[in-house]
Amino acid sequence: MSDGLTFNETLYPGVQVSYSCDDILFQDRSEHQDLVLFTNAVFGKVLMLDGVTQVTTADEFMYHEMMSHVPLFAHGSPRHVLIVGGGDCGLAEEVLKHGTVETLTQVEIDRSVVDFSKLHFTEFNASVFDDTRFELVIADGMEFVAETDRKFDVVIVDSTDPHGPGEILFSQEFYSAVHKCLTPGGVMVTQNGVPFLQKDELVTSIARFGRIFNDAAAYIAAIPTYFGGHMALGWASDHAALRDVPLAVLEKRFKAQGFQTKYYTPEVHLAAFALPRFIRDAVEEGRAKV
Amino acid sequence: MSDGLTFNETLYPGVQVSYSCDDILFQDRSEHQDLVLFTNAVFGKVLMLDGVTQVTTADEFMYHEMMSHVPLFAHGSPRHVLIVGGGDCGLAEEVLKHGTVETLTQVEIDRSVVDFSKLHFTEFNASVFDDTRFELVIADGMEFVAETDRKFDVVIVDSTDPHGPGEILFSQEFYSAVHKCLTPGGVMVTQNGVPFLQKDELVTSIARFGRIFNDAAAYIAAIPTYFGGHMALGWASDHAALRDVPLAVLEKRFKAQGFQTKYYTPEVHLAAFALPRFIRDAVEEGRAKV
Repeated sequence: MSDGLTFNETLYPGVQVSYSCDDILFQDRSEHQDLVLFTNAVFGKVLMLDGVTQVTTADEFMYHEMMSHVPLFAHGSPRHVLIVGGGDCGLAEEVLKHGTVETLTQVEIDRSVVDFSKLHFTEFNASVFDDTRFELVIADGMEFVAETDRKFDVVIVDSTDPHGPGEILFSQEFYSAVHKCLTPGGVMVTQNGVPFLQKDELVTSIARFGRIFNDAAAYIAAIPTYFGGHMALGWASDHAALRDVPLAVLEKRFKAQGFQTKYYTPEVHLAAFALPRFIRDAVEEGRAKV
Repeated sequence: MSDGLTFNETLYPGVQVSYSCDDILFQDRSEHQDLVLFTNAVFGKVLMLDGVTQVTTADEFMYHEMMSHVPLFAHGSPRHVLIVGGGDCGLAEEVLKHGTVETLTQVEIDRSVVDFSKLHFTEFNASVFDDTRFELVIADGMEFVAETDRKFDVVIVDSTDPHGPGEILFSQEFYSAVHKCLTPGGVMVTQNGVPFLQKDELVTSIARFGRIFNDAAAYIAAIPTYFGGHMALGWASDHAALRDVPLAVLEKRFKAQGFQTKYYTPEVHLAAFALPRFIRDAVEEGRAKV
């Protein structure tokens, strides 16, 4: 994977993104994943797992803001939030900015990802570990949602791609278990790949959502390190109205929380549900398979 | 640039996109540019000029639809359209889908780009060359807009990045000359780079627009081959209302034209003006420099 001074992303045959490496900060083959953290002139600190870029300090805000603030502001009064995956804890940071949140439970399978993120990604997660609302559970996400009796207003699935240990987090069984954990009015969002390159992943997830939830949808963000144009974020809820919260309501909720963002705005929130035609077609293809 | 079986984009130091090359279809150092056309498993045919990806058959629709249909449907009754640059003629194809368009003039500096595109990009430009509304002018874009007495409803600047021959197309002098060529109610749109990586390009263009036009703005699209998240498309007009055409009006105009799209929809049109906060900040920074 390393070419002396560069690291190459190996997610897609035919095209790859190469990052020049200024310094290797951490490299380890853990029980579950092959992990490297290095610095790059454009992206700052870059984390790769199994040859796939997971997070960088320069653009993590785009993904983490859109994964968290869209469902949380759509819900309006989220008290209990669950993150499955999300080992770098950048998503937890954004969720905890919401004063309405009373508990944030994060279930991550690999303790080593959290341990080094706590050491190396203080830029965006330092505030998480001292927050008494934050509970970290090192466990299999599938087992956790299948076995817990707890209920959550928002469940965010911050998984890797559907290969290896992350694959179960894209299964019908997993989505059913999440549905059971949601409060009435709750919503699940998922990392659902880049439709231009991973269309089938979106189609399949939408079909699976649709067999369980009343509203199976997707919204989008464009994140430099996730190559290929828009990334799709899956959206599953029993309440279609959650996708159509009026702008004025979102603005009031956002203003009431009083924090700053670098990507999210209430306008961007609503615009993210306006899907380019080829992505909308993939969503409709998934719905037709329900 | 070539590594035997791959071509590497060299636009940014620190990060590059590498395309595996299945076949080289055309390679030539023309009077103005170094040009290579090859096939890739993901992107189909890929055109690189001076080490920068210009167009691919797999994702050209995203860029060309958003560069054309947004200003044309915002205008509502475009009769005379000017494209500056756009040598691959994929933009011309989209413009000519509009039945309201009576003349499309395209000014391209490099005949060799048009000649090989006519040969090699028939997938998306075959219909252009037989259309009697289409007039190709091989000339310097700056000189053309400075000297012409003609007026256009929409001017689309489909330039390369602001280095080398494309640099003049980002100048105050050029934007002033375009302004002079616009009919009342007219609009100019420009290729304005990827703000995450080329923020200064957007700030500078917005400042220059603002010294000439009443409304200096930008909208966005996410295009796989233009690495780095959203691409910004510059928007300059004397009529701010052109950015706020109601959805129902856009839908009516779109339906009346009766063609299909793969990226553009009226919803996507309006959503494209909802800028992620860091891009909105760049636009505001540009406006503050007027």
